[in-house]
Amino acid sequence: MNNFRFKNPVELLFGKGQIANLQKRIAPGTRVLMTYGGGSIKRNGVYEQVMAALKDCEVVEFGGIEANPDYATLMKAIEICKTRNIDMLLAVGGGSIIDGTKFIAAGSCFEGDPWQLMGGRATAVKALPLATVLTLPATGSEMNCGAVISRRETREKLVFNSELVFPQFSILDPEVVYSLPNRQVANGVVDIYAHTLEQYLTTPNHTRVMDRWAEGLLQTLIEVAPRLLHEGQRDYNDCADFMLTATMGLNGFITMGVDEDWATHMIGHELTALHGLDHGVTLAMVYPGVMDIMRREKEAKLLQYGERVWGISEGTVDERIDAAIRRTEEFFSSVGMKLRLSDYGIGEETIRTIVDRFRQRGWNIGEHGIVTPEKVEAILRRVM
Amino acid sequence: MNNFRFKNPVELLFGKGQIANLQKRIAPGTRVLMTYGGGSIKRNGVYEQVMAALKDCEVVEFGGIEANPDYATLMKAIEICKTRNIDMLLAVGGGSIIDGTKFIAAGSCFEGDPWQLMGGRATAVKALPLATVLTLPATGSEMNCGAVISRRETREKLVFNSELVFPQFSILDPEVVYSLPNRQVANGVVDIYAHTLEQYLTTPNHTRVMDRWAEGLLQTLIEVAPRLLHEGQRDYNDCADFMLTATMGLNGFITMGVDEDWATHMIGHELTALHGLDHGVTLAMVYPGVMDIMRREKEAKLLQYGERVWGISEGTVDERIDAAIRRTEEFFSSVGMKLRLSDYGIGEETIRTIVDRFRQRGWNIGEHGIVTPEKVEAILRRVM
Repeated sequence: MNNFRFKNPVELLFGKGQIANLQKRIAPGTRVLMTYGGGSIKRNGVYEQVMAALKDCEVVEFGGIEANPDYATLMKAIEICKTRNIDMLLAVGGGSIIDGTKFIAAGSCFEGDPWQLMGGRATAVKALPLATVLTLPATGSEMNCGAVISRRETREKLVFNSELVFPQFSILDPEVVYSLPNRQVANGVVDIYAHTLEQYLTTPNHTRVMDRWAEGLLQTLIEVAPRLLHEGQRDYNDCADFMLTATMGLNGFITMGVDEDWATHMIGHELTALHGLDHGVTLAMVYPGVMDIMRREKEAKLLQYGERVWGISEGTVDERIDAAIRRTEEFFSSVGMKLRLSDYGIGEETIRTIVDRFRQRGWNIGEHGIVTPEKVEAILRRVM
Repeated sequence: MNNFRFKNPVELLFGKGQIANLQKRIAPGTRVLMTYGGGSIKRNGVYEQVMAALKDCEVVEFGGIEANPDYATLMKAIEICKTRNIDMLLAVGGGSIIDGTKFIAAGSCFEGDPWQLMGGRATAVKALPLATVLTLPATGSEMNCGAVISRRETREKLVFNSELVFPQFSILDPEVVYSLPNRQVANGVVDIYAHTLEQYLTTPNHTRVMDRWAEGLLQTLIEVAPRLLHEGQRDYNDCADFMLTATMGLNGFITMGVDEDWATHMIGHELTALHGLDHGVTLAMVYPGVMDIMRREKEAKLLQYGERVWGISEGTVDERIDAAIRRTEEFFSSVGMKLRLSDYGIGEETIRTIVDRFRQRGWNIGEHGIVTPEKVEAILRRVM
């Protein structure tokens, strides 16, 4: 097991009716910037519940944060925070809204261009406090201190981490899942599945506990996904388990003492930056490629994954790995994902652009930098 | 899934050499009361490492805290905190030391007799900050806000909970496990196993995630216990997994949205209070009795436990439950536990005393109070 440091101070309020607790958590008179997206919260009742709970606060609304939140949009919110003396931020939405709100929180207190915070070029030293009401389980942003921000003008998508942007609390009411479109559920399922793999499919024999916990999340997703995507009213416990896997999949709880990969995410971010694809869509395409191309480096963990998650115990090493990849692809297909770049009209030119970018940045990604630009190229060709 | 609130702000520093980080975490000049037990830390090198890291602090030592820490002992430490203006407490030891230190932390700031804090009769409103260096994996106290304190003069053992006594940080160096006697490892294994069962063997279908995570801890313990108790040098990763199961077994990470039991612990506490038995020893005796006597109420979870943890899938419902109980007993025996009260000369009189105490306190224990005093009697007779 690797040495590790762990700290996650986020308070979760999980379950039915928890939005009303906002009233107890945010003092009357607080100047709150409430951030949200395209307005789905006005259709599913969440907006009314939040506004009712904040009736004694001074609420400034900032809607219109897009999926893959854009630097230009967020800079407008930062301006509002400064001119309106905002005390705290309340993100009401999914991962994009929460990520964007983290950038607003740190950017409002940053001297200079906040884009410097992205990719680790500058460090945040102060941030506005923030809290969240989650409306879309997927990214785990409600219980971590990371954010992914896009900049459309330069077609970039970069990561930012700071313990200053841990939410003070996050409200997770699984009832918001009832009305989610299947496409968003599918994106969430694949995103959580990929987060878990990034923290699991690396070095063997690091820790039995984390292995079991990661496998438990994968098994849960495999069990609930078809139930959530079935016709008819969704079951509360299915929604709750889906929401719980999302939060537990990226809050540090399964990453104690283990190596992490994140190559699939880094490659997927480029595909989104260049072509605007849904994050989940990119992961569903790239992960099977990573498994295939990195099969020697990840052999032991791929075999364990195949056996424990999919029950694959027969055949040669390569047959078992092939079967594990096939089952993964079938699972992603079963939730509605396409598996080839060509399904989205993406080809040679994009592969060259991505590989060039990684070369220019000097990025060897994956655990211990094993995913070189050459491997990235092979991975993208594998899923072309 | 039940609604739940979760918050655990404890910082973990886990791994080899982490004790040296005390120096970064505790400011020079801080007046630290360092609490410990019978002196094993002076034999395994931990004492020297701690003192070296605290060389710029004003350290007051308080050794001699016993297993099942005693009220009378802890009151002496509270007196020292008051007279010496102690700024913070550093517990260096296992669960008894850490639990005792939590009581000292809250008791030092309590108006009146701190025994009032036990069993929920009074609420702590302030506590001294505390941190821990764990030397014996078992209770999870290093990452929770509970404590169990004994009072030998009245032969009582009661529980205290307050978020004020979450450790600020806990240092977990698995190398301390190398030199632990088998008896302490065995007690730890059974304690962690029982903690996990208390949060798992209750209501079915609450949440798949927590079920998988609890099962993962049990599977890990079953795998590492024989390796730790084997002759010869212990393996680092086995020690690390053992330590991680202890912390993860009672820090709230496996109890989100589920019913909890704790009947076995409540009964076990009485056996320790009356006869001075090791905590783990009492749990190994009582748990099979709880499984047997509560088999109808816990049927679904007992079957799931048997199947997922022990691979039992054949036979009638009762045959499968019998097999699950037998495997549990065999596991406890395999680490060196005796399974009958009579092995310790305990009989009829003690059973009557315990059942009378529960009746007098009006205690119906277990999830939803299903373990009535009558059930407690049947459980104790089953393991007589």
